[in-house]
Amino acid sequence: MTDTPARPLRIVVHPDDNVAIIVNEGGLRAGTVFEDGLRLVEDIPEAHKVALTDLPRGSRVLRYGVPIGTTNADVPRGAWVHEGLLELPPAPQLHDVPFGGAILTKQDPLTGFTFEGFRNEDGTVGTRNILGISTTVQCVAATVDFAVKRIKAELLPKYPNVDDVIGITHIYGCGVAINAPDAQIPIRTLRNLSLNPNLGGAPMVVSLGCEKLQPALMLPASTLPILQSSPYVVRLQDEEHTSFSEMVAAIMDLAEKRLIELNKRQRVTCPASDLNVGMQCGGSDAFSGVTANPAVGFATDLLVRAGATVMFSEVTEVRDGIHLLTARAADEETARSLVREMQWYDDYLQKGGVDRSANPSPGNKKGGLNNIVEKAMGSIAKSGIGAIHGVSGHGERVTKKGLIFAATPASDFVCGTLQLAAGMNMHVFTTGRGTPYGLAMAPVIKVTSRTSLAKRWSDLIDINAGTIATGDQTIEQVGWEIFHMILAVASGRHQTCADRWGLHNEFALFNPAPIT
Amino acid sequence: MTDTPARPLRIVVHPDDNVAIIVNEGGLRAGTVFEDGLRLVEDIPEAHKVALTDLPRGSRVLRYGVPIGTTNADVPRGAWVHEGLLELPPAPQLHDVPFGGAILTKQDPLTGFTFEGFRNEDGTVGTRNILGISTTVQCVAATVDFAVKRIKAELLPKYPNVDDVIGITHIYGCGVAINAPDAQIPIRTLRNLSLNPNLGGAPMVVSLGCEKLQPALMLPASTLPILQSSPYVVRLQDEEHTSFSEMVAAIMDLAEKRLIELNKRQRVTCPASDLNVGMQCGGSDAFSGVTANPAVGFATDLLVRAGATVMFSEVTEVRDGIHLLTARAADEETARSLVREMQWYDDYLQKGGVDRSANPSPGNKKGGLNNIVEKAMGSIAKSGIGAIHGVSGHGERVTKKGLIFAATPASDFVCGTLQLAAGMNMHVFTTGRGTPYGLAMAPVIKVTSRTSLAKRWSDLIDINAGTIATGDQTIEQVGWEIFHMILAVASGRHQTCADRWGLHNEFALFNPAPIT
Ligand SMILES: [Ca+2]
Ligand SMILES: [Ca+2]
Ligand SMILES: [Ca+2]
Ligand SMILES: [Ca+2]
Ligand SMILES: [Ca+2]
Repeated sequence: MTDTPARPLRIVVHPDDNVAIIVNEGGLRAGTVFEDGLRLVEDIPEAHKVALTDLPRGSRVLRYGVPIGTTNADVPRGAWVHEGLLELPPAPQLHDVPFGGAILTKQDPLTGFTFEGFRNEDGTVGTRNILGISTTVQCVAATVDFAVKRIKAELLPKYPNVDDVIGITHIYGCGVAINAPDAQIPIRTLRNLSLNPNLGGAPMVVSLGCEKLQPALMLPASTLPILQSSPYVVRLQDEEHTSFSEMVAAIMDLAEKRLIELNKRQRVTCPASDLNVGMQCGGSDAFSGVTANPAVGFATDLLVRAGATVMFSEVTEVRDGIHLLTARAADEETARSLVREMQWYDDYLQKGGVDRSANPSPGNKKGGLNNIVEKAMGSIAKSGIGAIHGVSGHGERVTKKGLIFAATPASDFVCGTLQLAAGMNMHVFTTGRGTPYGLAMAPVIKVTSRTSLAKRWSDLIDINAGTIATGDQTIEQVGWEIFHMILAVASGRHQTCADRWGLHNEFALFNPAPIT
Repeated sequence: MTDTPARPLRIVVHPDDNVAIIVNEGGLRAGTVFEDGLRLVEDIPEAHKVALTDLPRGSRVLRYGVPIGTTNADVPRGAWVHEGLLELPPAPQLHDVPFGGAILTKQDPLTGFTFEGFRNEDGTVGTRNILGISTTVQCVAATVDFAVKRIKAELLPKYPNVDDVIGITHIYGCGVAINAPDAQIPIRTLRNLSLNPNLGGAPMVVSLGCEKLQPALMLPASTLPILQSSPYVVRLQDEEHTSFSEMVAAIMDLAEKRLIELNKRQRVTCPASDLNVGMQCGGSDAFSGVTANPAVGFATDLLVRAGATVMFSEVTEVRDGIHLLTARAADEETARSLVREMQWYDDYLQKGGVDRSANPSPGNKKGGLNNIVEKAMGSIAKSGIGAIHGVSGHGERVTKKGLIFAATPASDFVCGTLQLAAGMNMHVFTTGRGTPYGLAMAPVIKVTSRTSLAKRWSDLIDINAGTIATGDQTIEQVGWEIFHMILAVASGRHQTCADRWGLHNEFALFNPAPIT
């Protein structure tokens, strides 16, 4: 807490709200008086909530114009509205959700924005030119790691137009219930990861031989032209590999064939509509929903107006706002699909003996987010204000343009991995508490909700949205900044902090089916 | 299939068996006649089963002296008994299992065998002297990878008595239902991994700050003396880390403090009873149960006689033989615990919509293993013939001596990771089809069931048990060979193939609880 009384600042999101967020770094002391006369009756930490009116026991606490809970004690005006005072409301029902009522007049198209990308035969566009080495099974992971190290050291330097070589390793493929109802999720995730636009349609697969996830099950020949026309599998158990060195040599040989093809590619000018941008938040605080996420939401609207695909995700973080999302569904099928994904996740959590309240972390709570409703309202802000054009299930490939709800858990790398499978070629990640997040398969722009983090982690944070809280920038200004940085990074003109350090977290596969 | 008729060979495991395994490489042709007059009525692949008597529809097919299924058609003597002809019997009941009836007279103690190990303060002994860097959450994994690379390049060469530096990274810690009933499994697994004897009681932890799995939840100060006496956590979100470079520097500083301590350690002579050996099979074939696994079982008996801890695992691969195991339980509590672990797994599989028949892989079946019963009987052979002295739940630390059933899935790296958490300081892994398996935290001796694989993968396979099938070696001889190699590898005198190549697969955490 600061002892020198700075000018007290607070943020209210919606005119109906009866709480506001304290903006001042270090929080504010009891006795602080705002210009309008509001006096704090106790110390309130930064990013936490102050009561704007008396909230007698049983009052609905409104933030983002929606009830985030009910007071379980009398809370006077000027008091700290903390987790212990709020009762979690029940989750919105999944039947009779509103449909289409909140769709705004169609926003004007945004034309003339382009980026320099790698055009693929299947119509997608890469922002990077990467050789991806897929694996069918965890047993080959260490061998592929070994080969990738040698490929990067010995081959990659000869092919300067190729950005990177990635082993798509994971802990799936055998020792799993491959015919379980939910096994389709990890299987299609691995398939669609191999088809990510940044891999240029040149997949190759390393298989063991005896695994459950056989190459043809993971990547049927119909999925990409190259799978019919060229050999694409190295199978370690094949008789021809009579030593470990020969296995590695076979992987390197096939990799070099692919590198030669990838190296012929050049960036060409592409419309912004060729982008597929995945939006995500992680390590959120109470500012996330008023600074970083609305700024990302503004960029989402710009991208959608420019014809791009924009995905938002994180089922447990939209569950409490599902009625707000179905109201934005462009058609009834989209609304029904939204409900289907919520229901699937409700069931999934229930089988594990928990519910949506399992989502918020200690850091979220320390950061002022009292419960999943408050967190969800802030998380949804990333989706902007436009119509929702479609829904994809976990790990499904997205081919539609516009705003898409791509179902994923909120868990950061699981979400990122599923968005990559959905076809993401650019990623935007917002954080309040701070996380050194990075992915190998697509560039990640990190946006922080707080100026203090932007300063402290200046070599990890790409964009500071904390300036919105202090009134130094508007949501629109930061939104345009994000939009322009997406185009610059997509074109290879600007390097993200994560790429500068080579911070590339492993793939995190979502497998809700049993292992055996 | 070979065209030149070699001397036909077959193996029968138990006098009651009405099928035998074809031993000849490449299988045998229809018309082949064995010395005792048995004539094959069709081609039979290597490692697959031949009917020794007529098996009319509805006959029980006996292998290992137990029914592995019932024929669903008339099968004549000399025919190929393949998967399509066998109906899976129901799993043994979990109530009224026999208890203690099969315990043999106590075998003689085996004295005088020692190895050179690193003695730890908590009484355990390491076979390696490794710095392990634990992580509480997936968000720090890429940062720790970055730091470990630098530690290995810049610091490790200065501390020649330290064998390696391992980042214990994983995809758990946040975005998970940390209070779910089953969350105790991944949490205690991560805790006990940090306490593995090969890490010398010198753990350090990298934490983000806002994650659900807080350092004190993962590693309470009571778990190791060092956690009370020395700082052991680097928390990336702490105010003092004002850049990524400073985070990495802080990790490297703490790592060097630990390296200095670890470097003072020297190998000392320890009795074989200080070993904790984990036995596992993966990529099994029909030979596994008659060559590699019984040889490992013989080594298990030797180790137990020498006072060591020996773990066998893989719940779905013992489920069908549970009545044989409870009969070997040293006391009633052990029998009850065995049943408890089977019941937990039955329920776990059922929630996912599958059952134990989901275990066998295409490679198992191609290798002659028709179903889970046949696979289980071969898998159990690794446990030898002695009494079972205890049971540990998934990820629990084993402190008892003797033969222990450590519950794990059969999935190879999940099992290996859980056995490491249980305290394994040496690993023995048998394979028929072949897998380039390796772990960073403990040496892995790979034993193959087939001479053909031993020849083809001579730089990946440490011991060939295929000689048992051809009569060139006995189970006892190979068992002693395994036993002696365990002592040599544990002492650092002999290097395994996996260590020679640095083949170290990632940790594969078992998390049966939901992610959020
Ligand atoms: Ca989030
Ligand atoms: Ca997230
Ligand atoms: Ca096995
Ligand atoms: Ca296994
Ligand atoms: Ca790795």
